[in-house]
Amino acid sequence: MSKGSEQVGSGCAMTGAGVVRVGRGSVKIEAPVYICESASVVGKKESEGPLGDLFDRVEEDDLVGGKTWEEAESNLQKKAVEILLDKAGLSAEDVDVMYAGDLLAQSMASNFGLGSFGIPFYGLYGACSTCGESLGLGSLALLSGLAERVVCVTSSHFASAEKEFRYPLEYGNQRPLSASWTVTGSGAFLLSAKQDGIKSQPRARIAGLTVGQMIDSAFKDSMNMGACMAPAVASTLERHFQDFGVEPEAYDKIITGDLGKVGQRILFDLMDEKGYDITKQHMDCGIEIFDGATQDTHAGGSGCGCCAVTLSAYILRQVESGLWKKVLFVPTGALLSKVSFNEGNTVPGIGQAVVIEKI
Amino acid sequence: MSKGSEQVGSGCAMTGAGVVRVGRGSVKIEAPVYICESASVVGKKESEGPLGDLFDRVEEDDLVGGKTWEEAESNLQKKAVEILLDKAGLSAEDVDVMYAGDLLAQSMASNFGLGSFGIPFYGLYGACSTCGESLGLGSLALLSGLAERVVCVTSSHFASAEKEFRYPLEYGNQRPLSASWTVTGSGAFLLSAKQDGIKSQPRARIAGLTVGQMIDSAFKDSMNMGACMAPAVASTLERHFQDFGVEPEAYDKIITGDLGKVGQRILFDLMDEKGYDITKQHMDCGIEIFDGATQDTHAGGSGCGCCAVTLSAYILRQVESGLWKKVLFVPTGALLSKVSFNEGNTVPGIGQAVVIEKI
Repeated sequence: MSKGSEQVGSGCAMTGAGVVRVGRGSVKIEAPVYICESASVVGKKESEGPLGDLFDRVEEDDLVGGKTWEEAESNLQKKAVEILLDKAGLSAEDVDVMYAGDLLAQSMASNFGLGSFGIPFYGLYGACSTCGESLGLGSLALLSGLAERVVCVTSSHFASAEKEFRYPLEYGNQRPLSASWTVTGSGAFLLSAKQDGIKSQPRARIAGLTVGQMIDSAFKDSMNMGACMAPAVASTLERHFQDFGVEPEAYDKIITGDLGKVGQRILFDLMDEKGYDITKQHMDCGIEIFDGATQDTHAGGSGCGCCAVTLSAYILRQVESGLWKKVLFVPTGALLSKVSFNEGNTVPGIGQAVVIEKI
Repeated sequence: MSKGSEQVGSGCAMTGAGVVRVGRGSVKIEAPVYICESASVVGKKESEGPLGDLFDRVEEDDLVGGKTWEEAESNLQKKAVEILLDKAGLSAEDVDVMYAGDLLAQSMASNFGLGSFGIPFYGLYGACSTCGESLGLGSLALLSGLAERVVCVTSSHFASAEKEFRYPLEYGNQRPLSASWTVTGSGAFLLSAKQDGIKSQPRARIAGLTVGQMIDSAFKDSMNMGACMAPAVASTLERHFQDFGVEPEAYDKIITGDLGKVGQRILFDLMDEKGYDITKQHMDCGIEIFDGATQDTHAGGSGCGCCAVTLSAYILRQVESGLWKKVLFVPTGALLSKVSFNEGNTVPGIGQAVVIEKI
């Protein structure tokens, strides 16, 4: 047994302590799971939006020092993790496990951006929901005793996503008003149950999870992903409210990422049918990050980076300051590939809910 | 709070009980985590190999009743889960969370094959290591208290993988002897700490994990993935032996998936350099599943389905019967995409280690 061995909680029953299972894939987390630190890196367009002043770093160069769009996105993830570790006063060796993902085929941005850290790694894919998935799985890593410190990171890049899913940029295709604009950015988060050795103060705690179901409502329009994803968010929200025995008013904000303006309207209608009015609490990262009136971003921002950088730069500040005491954060993914789209398939959606509270 | 609510382990410290952290991303699991049941579905070629009689189901139709290769692979995953639930006497509603992945862009096989089960879902990507990743994360779901029953499923399909990564089948490209043959198949596993409500007897227990690091040794040959992955396996094995304080002799078998014959030779050399002789214990799922002499599969089988169906059909039988009391199962992924390959990038590897013991 190595020097670092330690026995944790050997006197207990097998399941995690301070965890209350309240439904299928739904848990209240009473044990400490802190978002100890976070970091955000964005591109120029994002820096010109309403949240522009809040991000840790702005990359003026679209290629982020790389030679390809994919390398650019890898570099965004790498920089987000470097800034995160620097803010926390940690080195990569201080982190037990890393959870990461992006939108590219075979999670290329993560696989090429993060290897050099040498942190034991679990790769994820949940489209734009991956940020919520990584925070959920990172919480479980702490609660199960696998890890003491976890890093969760996701990214997207406008140009690599357009290349992967739609048309070459040079083609200059028209975009309908329902289309979203993939955010160029990466957000990284450090989770731990303890502050030991971390120089910054914990920013918020994760107090619950509802794992999303894949919902296929037979929409097929890759230029209207809000419509494809809204039913999945509605499903997760309904399950969450029922499992936790709460109403929307339990939260200061219910934050999706990234439905955009079209998806938001559909979500309101779907929730109304289910008997919930979330119009007062609802906020969408895709709507917040750009100024639709002046930035030509149509329905709003999207991508694995959108809700990650919005959480890091904006949402956590609001929670930290106490302006919002408790929020339900529901990153939302459109599960399509260019192959499935070209084969005429539908676009299923998924929404991963994470309860984030002021400490 | 819903009817199903229950408090689990509220008297304990925050970390999981019966879990001993022995290194970065390495845990001994003393709490019960059982592989309660498993299922395997394969194609015709796999049924003609040395393990052919052991699989639960053989699909004679390459398209598995679908219209595209991707739909075929989705159907493999769906059938594997259906057989799994049937063998266990459960319905989909009895499962809390599902972890799944495949090799296709944006995990298309899982996203389209599994949605209809309605099981809360976490999507994964770790190339051929995904089977190990899913078993690891599934174990953590039980240990953390998120779930009482977890399904883990992975798949690959020869034709969808050739289309995704290499050439159209109609092109009839030559394959060097170092190339592997992607297995058409899907393996599914039911994990739980309890046998309550499950009609079959538990098959084995998961007794430890070592989470893999991404290792990039600057190999670039997508027709020699064994060479690309061997350094990652060597890294995981060395960390595992050190963290757990054991020698290779602690295991009846050390099972990689899927290095093939070329990767195996490289692994032996690399382990020899690190001071470990694993030649007596080593077995590779890619070498086992096909008869290289008669099936024209060159270095061996590969793909997310290869080690999953080999674990389900062969390895678990050997452990169950007591022929092997303890094995180290290390699914191994080559982290490339066709984009990264065409951009001249390297092929990093990752190996996810899972300790599987006789109950």
